[in-house]
Amino acid sequence: MRNDKPAVGLDPAIWPSSARRNSAGALELGGVDCRDLVAAYESPVYVFDEIDARSRAQLFRQAYESAGATTVYYAAKAFLATAVAKWMTEAGLGVDVASGGELEVVLRAGVPGHGLLMHGNNKSIAEIELALTAGVGRIVIDSFDEIVRVADVANRLGLVQQVLLRVTVGVEAHTHEFIATAHEDQKFGLSVASGDAAEAVRRIVKLPSLSFAGLHSHLGSQIFDSSGFHEAAVRVAAFARSLRDEQGVGVRELNLGGGMGIAYIEGDDPLEVAEMAEQICAVVRSECGLAGIEVPALAFEPGRAIIGPAGVTIYEVGTVKPIELDEGLVRTYVSVDGGMSDNIRTALYEAKYSVVLASRLSSAEPMLARVVGKHCESGDIVVRDAWLPSDVVPGDLLAVAATGAYCRSMSSNYNYLPRPAVIAVRDRLTSVVLRRETTEDLLALDPGA
Amino acid sequence: MRNDKPAVGLDPAIWPSSARRNSAGALELGGVDCRDLVAAYESPVYVFDEIDARSRAQLFRQAYESAGATTVYYAAKAFLATAVAKWMTEAGLGVDVASGGELEVVLRAGVPGHGLLMHGNNKSIAEIELALTAGVGRIVIDSFDEIVRVADVANRLGLVQQVLLRVTVGVEAHTHEFIATAHEDQKFGLSVASGDAAEAVRRIVKLPSLSFAGLHSHLGSQIFDSSGFHEAAVRVAAFARSLRDEQGVGVRELNLGGGMGIAYIEGDDPLEVAEMAEQICAVVRSECGLAGIEVPALAFEPGRAIIGPAGVTIYEVGTVKPIELDEGLVRTYVSVDGGMSDNIRTALYEAKYSVVLASRLSSAEPMLARVVGKHCESGDIVVRDAWLPSDVVPGDLLAVAATGAYCRSMSSNYNYLPRPAVIAVRDRLTSVVLRRETTEDLLALDPGA
Repeated sequence: MRNDKPAVGLDPAIWPSSARRNSAGALELGGVDCRDLVAAYESPVYVFDEIDARSRAQLFRQAYESAGATTVYYAAKAFLATAVAKWMTEAGLGVDVASGGELEVVLRAGVPGHGLLMHGNNKSIAEIELALTAGVGRIVIDSFDEIVRVADVANRLGLVQQVLLRVTVGVEAHTHEFIATAHEDQKFGLSVASGDAAEAVRRIVKLPSLSFAGLHSHLGSQIFDSSGFHEAAVRVAAFARSLRDEQGVGVRELNLGGGMGIAYIEGDDPLEVAEMAEQICAVVRSECGLAGIEVPALAFEPGRAIIGPAGVTIYEVGTVKPIELDEGLVRTYVSVDGGMSDNIRTALYEAKYSVVLASRLSSAEPMLARVVGKHCESGDIVVRDAWLPSDVVPGDLLAVAATGAYCRSMSSNYNYLPRPAVIAVRDRLTSVVLRRETTEDLLALDPGA
Repeated sequence: MRNDKPAVGLDPAIWPSSARRNSAGALELGGVDCRDLVAAYESPVYVFDEIDARSRAQLFRQAYESAGATTVYYAAKAFLATAVAKWMTEAGLGVDVASGGELEVVLRAGVPGHGLLMHGNNKSIAEIELALTAGVGRIVIDSFDEIVRVADVANRLGLVQQVLLRVTVGVEAHTHEFIATAHEDQKFGLSVASGDAAEAVRRIVKLPSLSFAGLHSHLGSQIFDSSGFHEAAVRVAAFARSLRDEQGVGVRELNLGGGMGIAYIEGDDPLEVAEMAEQICAVVRSECGLAGIEVPALAFEPGRAIIGPAGVTIYEVGTVKPIELDEGLVRTYVSVDGGMSDNIRTALYEAKYSVVLASRLSSAEPMLARVVGKHCESGDIVVRDAWLPSDVVPGDLLAVAATGAYCRSMSSNYNYLPRPAVIAVRDRLTSVVLRRETTEDLLALDPGA
């Protein structure tokens, strides 16, 4: 239970840059009153501050380019729609996709294939064909099975595909700590320590329809500092050197993946973007120097860090229920009109979020609240512990910050709830990124409906 | 890690009743070869044994009616489509719905309103209107806010709505244990101990558009024995007596909810259905006798226990990757073409499942495997620990048992993966319950696609 003092105001480390209270005391995003958003697009609604998303994309590109990196890809899995693909492309980023479906969206947004990179531990032949036909710049190979699969498709299409090999170096980074081990017990990549990664390179370079561009190493998610990257750089540089010495193969590119963290609640303190970029790139250069190899072209794949803070979810309160706990403590359950269908992260990862009363200002005393959804499940919690004004009533709107990443992208229709609209706001204007589902949409797959 | 001997064959406690190996060694459901299912409906595919689902629905109705209960509702949240609503209705069950969307599906299946019951901790006015207009038999009231809301709608529509009050009695049941406390720290219901439940009844009986039918008390999920129901019966009977003595109000109905558990893996041992029914009903009768009150009409709401074991998910293997762990142990990651989008339960609840090689028989030595999905996330695990034949290769089909409940109903389009088809099988015939999503379905909400 969070017993620290309630937050006052809208912490700029957590809320999108345009978030403010207007003269009526209501939360405004991109100059649009959240009450008007709900009136126009119903509740719940995902709202994206377009300028915030675009600026953050530019910030990442500039910071990593200034630090010496060559390419920044937007990790589409965090959240994708054609509008978002355009924002990222216009900010000069590539896009990394993890499925045929994500690739299809990006292509429909008019993004040319050469700026794309495709991930996946189990790409289907159809997905590989779609990617190679679209001219996707890089395929990240994840297994021995896939080497042959990609080579076959490339061969059939009469082209030479640039590929990276995803390797595991035994470094896993999370927030404030990293874990270094010999082996990684996970589905992605091929292990350097076991020799599998070296063997994969041996096989790749023999295949005329593949061009070995380099290595991919991803450390984890919600990374707050560069310590994990330091350890990974040591191990990747040593592996690159061994590839040169033993196989005469150069690593032209090194993609260090994403995982840069964001602030969800007060106290979350990810390293500033430019500083993180400088530290990571510097450590790679220095470790390559020590290993006596050329510094490869560096690439990164932030997703959450770009789109997460740009998104806010607005909900309407339906019921307010104080529950007496032991020792006289009272927890007030505030039920909203969405829940684990539009944000599974609280239930799935015990994620924490910041929430405010959005439709008005209140000077009422704060109360310990739990914001819960409307699903028929007791684990359906949006914000486990929050301070909200004690005069919250049905009809009030609440806003949950930093829901831009992994909320709409992982959303479901649990209990046959329609998925909310995704609306972009900027300069007092709104545009539909994804429209709200209708009952007819929900029944479209049922031949008996 | 599960180190017991690998399962041989298809345990009838876990697999649907028609599951068998055909002469080719392939898994057959409802007389249909799983390879033919994949050929016709693509992979992954959810397969429901229609006879199994219908029989289990009848089994529950008969067992609980024989034990003295009046109504068995199917809990639609577990999995719902018009076909399933028809199966349940034809088996003589009512249906409990938890949203306007679920109600809409049931109504489109032609189920009359009087056999329905509506749940929800935050029903919207629109949902209440839809329910009352459809003549839904029972509304389960969950909060003070809702008393007024339902009464207003009923009043406006000129009808008297039968309502139950959801109460919390401080008993939470899970699998082999139950927890009894004074208060329940959850979003559902009104507390008996705090006096809120009595106050709610006081308010309900005063409203001429509401008819107080009785109480609803739900204990939890995956309940394997009746001990939790015993403690709940004690407390509910005492509360019913106090309502009679203090308010002169009778509890005509008592709905004890659902939560009856099923076997996901070997060793899961829920009490046999008839035995559980007998024990629960007997204990309610006996506690009512001790409390000196009339035994109310009893109702129950199994969902998972009816539809869970009827469903099987078939996947195709895409990659096979042995990973050396410490101490020479090898874990083989078997990647399939679905994952946390079609079954979030492994990641969300650490749920365990049984999996077999489905497209053929193999006499190869068993290997320690982890069945993982194709999502770009390391937590994307379908079966954490499984024994699979060591000759599993890409192209093989795997079947995961007992995925009928809370898999399709909680499914997402994470990574823009289309949701698999849901196919019913019986007597060698197949029928589409929900068709597979297409790329166009996935892009239908995006105005830029």
